[in-house]
Amino acid sequence: MDMEATKIVLDEQDMPRQWYNIQADLPTPIPPPLGSDGKPISPDDLASVFPMNIIEQEVSTERWITIPEPVREMLTLWRPSPLYRAKRLEAALGTPAKIYYKNEGVSPAGSHKPNTAIAQAYYNKEFGIRYLTTETGAGQWGSALAMSCKLVGIECKVFMVRISFDQKPFRKIMMKTWGAECIASPSPLTAVGRKILAEQPDTPGSLGIAISEAIEQAVEREDTRYALGSVLNHVMLHQTIIGLEAKKQFEKISRSPDIVIGCAGGGSNFAGISFPFIYDKIHGRDMRIIATEPEACPTLTRGPYIYDAGDVAKMTPLLAMHSLGHGFIPPAIHAGGLRYHGMAPLVSHVLKHNLIEATALPQTECYEAALLFAHTEGFIPAPETSHAIAQTIREAKQAREEGKEKVILMNWSGHGLMDLQGYDAFMSGRLEDYPLPDELLQQSLAAVRDHPKI
Amino acid sequence: MDMEATKIVLDEQDMPRQWYNIQADLPTPIPPPLGSDGKPISPDDLASVFPMNIIEQEVSTERWITIPEPVREMLTLWRPSPLYRAKRLEAALGTPAKIYYKNEGVSPAGSHKPNTAIAQAYYNKEFGIRYLTTETGAGQWGSALAMSCKLVGIECKVFMVRISFDQKPFRKIMMKTWGAECIASPSPLTAVGRKILAEQPDTPGSLGIAISEAIEQAVEREDTRYALGSVLNHVMLHQTIIGLEAKKQFEKISRSPDIVIGCAGGGSNFAGISFPFIYDKIHGRDMRIIATEPEACPTLTRGPYIYDAGDVAKMTPLLAMHSLGHGFIPPAIHAGGLRYHGMAPLVSHVLKHNLIEATALPQTECYEAALLFAHTEGFIPAPETSHAIAQTIREAKQAREEGKEKVILMNWSGHGLMDLQGYDAFMSGRLEDYPLPDELLQQSLAAVRDHPKI
Repeated sequence: MDMEATKIVLDEQDMPRQWYNIQADLPTPIPPPLGSDGKPISPDDLASVFPMNIIEQEVSTERWITIPEPVREMLTLWRPSPLYRAKRLEAALGTPAKIYYKNEGVSPAGSHKPNTAIAQAYYNKEFGIRYLTTETGAGQWGSALAMSCKLVGIECKVFMVRISFDQKPFRKIMMKTWGAECIASPSPLTAVGRKILAEQPDTPGSLGIAISEAIEQAVEREDTRYALGSVLNHVMLHQTIIGLEAKKQFEKISRSPDIVIGCAGGGSNFAGISFPFIYDKIHGRDMRIIATEPEACPTLTRGPYIYDAGDVAKMTPLLAMHSLGHGFIPPAIHAGGLRYHGMAPLVSHVLKHNLIEATALPQTECYEAALLFAHTEGFIPAPETSHAIAQTIREAKQAREEGKEKVILMNWSGHGLMDLQGYDAFMSGRLEDYPLPDELLQQSLAAVRDHPKI
Repeated sequence: MDMEATKIVLDEQDMPRQWYNIQADLPTPIPPPLGSDGKPISPDDLASVFPMNIIEQEVSTERWITIPEPVREMLTLWRPSPLYRAKRLEAALGTPAKIYYKNEGVSPAGSHKPNTAIAQAYYNKEFGIRYLTTETGAGQWGSALAMSCKLVGIECKVFMVRISFDQKPFRKIMMKTWGAECIASPSPLTAVGRKILAEQPDTPGSLGIAISEAIEQAVEREDTRYALGSVLNHVMLHQTIIGLEAKKQFEKISRSPDIVIGCAGGGSNFAGISFPFIYDKIHGRDMRIIATEPEACPTLTRGPYIYDAGDVAKMTPLLAMHSLGHGFIPPAIHAGGLRYHGMAPLVSHVLKHNLIEATALPQTECYEAALLFAHTEGFIPAPETSHAIAQTIREAKQAREEGKEKVILMNWSGHGLMDLQGYDAFMSGRLEDYPLPDELLQQSLAAVRDHPKI
């Protein structure tokens, strides 16, 4: 076996001191978000939802943005995260490819989400905000924000989709352990919640409803704002610490990746690993960068690049992005974090410029990949992460067929210890794939035909 | 805030190449295990239960035992584990003490248990064994062995106490994910299981029954052996990698601990962190070393040092150890890993020689400590680990009162993500303490009065 170390670690003083803002290097600027009147919105239009220091980051085109020292200090609770060489997986595949994975599962919440949650909690506190509201589906984002608010010292209220609230008690306890209030959505706390409960007392809830409730509570109080775990530019920015660390780690071993892979739901972990490498690609380095999504929710591969809303109720501005239509309800695949109808505008934009590729995979192939990973490398991946693993395995097999020693880097976005039911279903043969029927897609897109064109 | 790094990391090449065997340095040898005839057993007497290469380690008095290269390679999947400086916890306590914790929660199974599971699986495979059996209560050990057997390439069968099997589905899925067979105990697969099921079809099971089933299946087949996750000498040996790493990490920052703390159930994580430091203590360095146990199961603090069996059914040899009596059934505290009537003979022996101290803590104090830890350092500790944290906080407060800058090291034996129900119970005010009534203890000890004397 290869004598190279299994883990490439960085000392804390080598943790990046700035985030990388890809907006400084895009071939064309991203189209602006539009208000309901079809006109570009101004920063002030967002001021009741987000604090101004975050809005400034959202629209900034500065290439490097300094990470505040208190944020760096909190990130060192688990960062820099180790870069792993998956030697045992390589051996099992009999591939000449060298497979590296960036282990974001080492955070207290078990995923990459705290990278931005810490920063968002910090900026809100600095701006004088005392309460943050958010929504969560399976609970990964809600628990990351709960922890971050506790570390920073502000309050956190999480609206959790009722069906997950009932079915996933452990994520709920995690949030409570970190001091957050976790509420089943729809709830009687908001006007929108009360309205829906009156009409459908037994509704399982939805992410769209939970977002509406969280925003409603944020805008009605001076000391309260809303936090989003993906999609927006500032979230992508905060996640670039992943790729920036990976670049330093590759420098330590005098290698660089030929292929960079991340799974993509809203786009934040993919952006985090890939944007710093896209910088190199823009500046001439040959490299493939692949975003991998579920075939059940094929936003980048089959959704058009359009102006669409970020939520079902259209409370957000219209964003220029790949979308399956804001009314699209993805089937109940286990990778809850990848069940989103849209895609970060920045990720959509780099795809438009052919700086990245996208693939869509069936969940059974992903679980098979996840099992092989757990059997060789030990760590049990999150269902979202399994999509990156499955694509990595495809590429490693391709390298074997071509006899090429490619260097593959994937973002191992989180562990699966809170999501083991999906493994059970897969191993028991109870898991189905859900290729999206074209007619369903067209139906969903019909509802957004009148949106402004990009 | 202190400019020292939050994490002291070691490169893989600095991972220890030998385990430390404290048997080489004990002031007196440990009393031998006795058979049912009251006479010392020979290595051959154990040959149907354990492979001979492990039995040799069990009785070895060599100070340093080389870690086989394939074991080292597998350990690098997560080792060396980081040594953390808990600066935010120190600040919350306002203590001049410097608190360090060794994070064993970074392993794929989430605890220190794989340190020995990997080694045991490896030695069994080397000896030609194809199946390992074991028992598990809450599932921490069973999942560690499941993973290790899969990595090594042998089969694993885990008898899980029925009540845990039914109440903790996630640990069961973890084991299945790593390819192990997990069976509710008592089971119809063994004579002892069938007998108990016939008499009490609705029994919740017990660790004692599960051990009996696992041993029965191990001894009846040539290619099968049994693995134990704590108590025995070779298990303590394999865990010393924790303390050996910690010593190297302290050397890097030119410090050394004044106090070393670990929780103690069977004794393995405590031995792992402390034995390498006890070496220093034996050789003249002044230091306090504290084993912390639940007041509900106060083996070291209130159990006498006697010859007693390791299991309820007395299938094991008699071991010289602190014990509450092999028939003792601890109350249902959440720290399942600390619910054991006995204590590793080696740990018992160093207490007898006053090389360590022991304390017993109520579980509510431990959960309060765990919450403070999660609120300051982010990571949510296992209920077992919370005992080490609570003792650390006691010592840090003492340092504050004395105005002394003590250096405290604790073993953070695992994360609590699979054990969140206890947090929920504590936060909801549903958790009780169970100080052990003296008359219950005397009752339990009455049953072992006829055992040979040490």
